Amino acid sequence: MTERIPILRIGEVLLVSVQFDLEDEIVMNLQEDLAAEIVEGSARGVIIDITALEIVDSFVGRMLATIADVSRLLDAETVVVGMRPAVAITLVELGLSLGGVTTALDLEKGLARLRHPGSSPGRA
Amino acid sequence: MTERIPILRIGEVLLVSVQFDLEDEIVMNLQEDLAAEIVEGSARGVIIDITALEIVDSFVGRMLATIADVSRLLDAETVVVGMRPAVAITLVELGLSLGGVTTALDLEKGLARLRHPGSSPGRA
Repeated sequence: MTERIPILRIGEVLLVSVQFDLEDEIVMNLQEDLAAEIVEGSARGVIIDITALEIVDSFVGRMLATIADVSRLLDAETVVVGMRPAVAITLVELGLSLGGVTTALDLEKGLARLRHPGSSPGRA
Repeated sequence: MTERIPILRIGEVLLVSVQFDLEDEIVMNLQEDLAAEIVEGSARGVIIDITALEIVDSFVGRMLATIADVSRLLDAETVVVGMRPAVAITLVELGLSLGGVTTALDLEKGLARLRHPGSSPGRA
């Protein structure tokens, strides 16, 4: 099986569904693939679904922040969707409140957010 | 990590991204979860993305056919997207031409197909 997480596309939005434990190499590949895909495909937004993640550590937290930072430099907005309550609590306890990362409850709300930026400022 | 593949939702369409080798239990869980989600969430379509699958065997081929059959009984259409050329060849060689399964090249075309059934009869 490939060591790359597939990147799906819906219009100008890229979609990544994180489903398994992330090792260093997979994360490096994902960051590179996403950056290349944003530039080559003129993507405007990136949605990372973490519904499947029941626990996160600082490694995953930093990955989310890095992807958001890189995407922003390439003029694309990142929205993290599907975060479980326990994951949010863990991230804050780790000191990773992901200031630069936009979140939405689920994929549909994430897509709406990228289509209508600023329509839901409470969750920015 | 969970032994379940997450099911995402875009409107009335459920989206499953298959990213790793599928074991019996994961497939059983997926079939049950999808059927439950179709009924509880009144979903009209199911998209299964297999971009990440570089090889398939008859087990995966039968899974795709079974999901399509179950979904149809529950009044939802299944579209398989992201199939690699080599995978298509293998499926046919295995005698699994997936007669009841609709395919589309990528997620975007799959979504369009579910929104406008019959608009692309050539790939039905």
